[in-house]
Amino acid sequence: MTIEKALVVGTGLIGTSAALALRGKGVTVYLSDVDADAVRLAGELGAGREWAGEEADLALIAVPPHLVGERLAELQKRGAARVYTDVASVKADPIADAERLGCDLTSYVPGHPLAGRERSGPAAARADLFSGRPWALCPRPRTDAKALAVTRDLVAMCGAKAVTVDAGEHDSAVALVSHAPHLVASAMAASLADGDDVALGLAGQGLRDVTRIAAGNPLLWRMILAGNALPVAGVLERVAADLAAAASALRSGDLDDVTDLLRRGVDGQARIPGKHGGPEGDA
Amino acid sequence: MTIEKALVVGTGLIGTSAALALRGKGVTVYLSDVDADAVRLAGELGAGREWAGEEADLALIAVPPHLVGERLAELQKRGAARVYTDVASVKADPIADAERLGCDLTSYVPGHPLAGRERSGPAAARADLFSGRPWALCPRPRTDAKALAVTRDLVAMCGAKAVTVDAGEHDSAVALVSHAPHLVASAMAASLADGDDVALGLAGQGLRDVTRIAAGNPLLWRMILAGNALPVAGVLERVAADLAAAASALRSGDLDDVTDLLRRGVDGQARIPGKHGGPEGDA
Repeated sequence: MTIEKALVVGTGLIGTSAALALRGKGVTVYLSDVDADAVRLAGELGAGREWAGEEADLALIAVPPHLVGERLAELQKRGAARVYTDVASVKADPIADAERLGCDLTSYVPGHPLAGRERSGPAAARADLFSGRPWALCPRPRTDAKALAVTRDLVAMCGAKAVTVDAGEHDSAVALVSHAPHLVASAMAASLADGDDVALGLAGQGLRDVTRIAAGNPLLWRMILAGNALPVAGVLERVAADLAAAASALRSGDLDDVTDLLRRGVDGQARIPGKHGGPEGDA
Repeated sequence: MTIEKALVVGTGLIGTSAALALRGKGVTVYLSDVDADAVRLAGELGAGREWAGEEADLALIAVPPHLVGERLAELQKRGAARVYTDVASVKADPIADAERLGCDLTSYVPGHPLAGRERSGPAAARADLFSGRPWALCPRPRTDAKALAVTRDLVAMCGAKAVTVDAGEHDSAVALVSHAPHLVASAMAASLADGDDVALGLAGQGLRDVTRIAAGNPLLWRMILAGNALPVAGVLERVAADLAAAASALRSGDLDDVTDLLRRGVDGQARIPGKHGGPEGDA
């Protein structure tokens, strides 16, 4: 493999999980985070040791989307690694930031592993978090082929499946399959906040599944959604219109529109590919 | 126990699962269905034998909601059992039907097990379908105490937890925790129908969970929703309004309303009681 030394910048759930996976493959992993406690905890969990400026084969930037460009510019200025990638859930904005900040775009491979949990922080990390999951890579025309190959090795070492996709196409895709579903789950869950205890006592697995991802961190999700606002808004408008029409049909007593929505739901649900890997959620 | 002989009318998923649970407790189970193939298959699965008019201690009416009153009237006319209960997902309409048809309401205990699967029919039945799940019972002022006790024994024999609740309160509750969530899942799933393959290829466990119950039978769900239309419409209107407001906030760039929705979602999700029993969905 092309990665003997890796630098993980941002030792939250995703960064620490990748670090653990790389450690399991014998890679030397250096850890960095603005939060010294997070680095120490990740280190104690066996994810690697604190970075002291060593040069790495690859730097994995696992910070919130709006900080990726800035962090990339700093790391490249220090010559921290030969190849750089990130894990942000949106891709167009970080790439635009990197261009604006004058980053070297030949050594940067924008990435996004489709994996996550409701819990965050290094304590929630798992070496198998990415096992069997898609990991989007969004190389640009200027991306160096060698940099892409090294990043593909990272994905393989984490047990994930690399999916190469244009950055704009990626952002539209995750609006549909991840970001809008998160807010749909939030809206359904929010309606429970005023429900009485008798009602909640009748809740079953269906409700738990529909609303599970709504437990995610609101501030993290605000940042993700802010970076992909228009594609997400488009999906939500369609869902809201379908639900308003269903409510109207229910009030009128003519349920043909409701039946149509139920049928379209069956068709759409059937398009989701089979289960990948572990039991927990994507972000 | 008070149940030595039970009659199961309607050998679909729910009826056959209850029959299997009762057989596991040594109860003699008679099976009846308008579909002779369904009765034969349920019998072959060990759920009991075809009913030939024997009198039972309890008759479990497991037919679609709009047929409950009619079937109850027929069975009572034949003197099929001492006690009658049903499993319809809505309760006010079947009770009104029973009253309208002049049924004996002292021996009828309206019921609803909060359990189900996306698959239907006797082949999908499982003896442990109700294990640990809530099973709503909606006795009326006229309900005989003995009939309620016998029905509670049925619930206990199926491994479920009896929850006594007023019929109207039940219908509002399941609108919130089961029927509206179903249509929310359908609307999210419907938006995938036109998604491209790249987008679907990035789908993860979160999307699968949010949309899982949307795979349910559209015609069965149309009947359930028709019987609980106004309470479901009320919940859907609130969810649709929250989603439309979130879309509008995303378009405007002022994400405070989105953050508020995310926070309310966390609060609402936290109100759902812990997991009951098996891995599959309620209906």
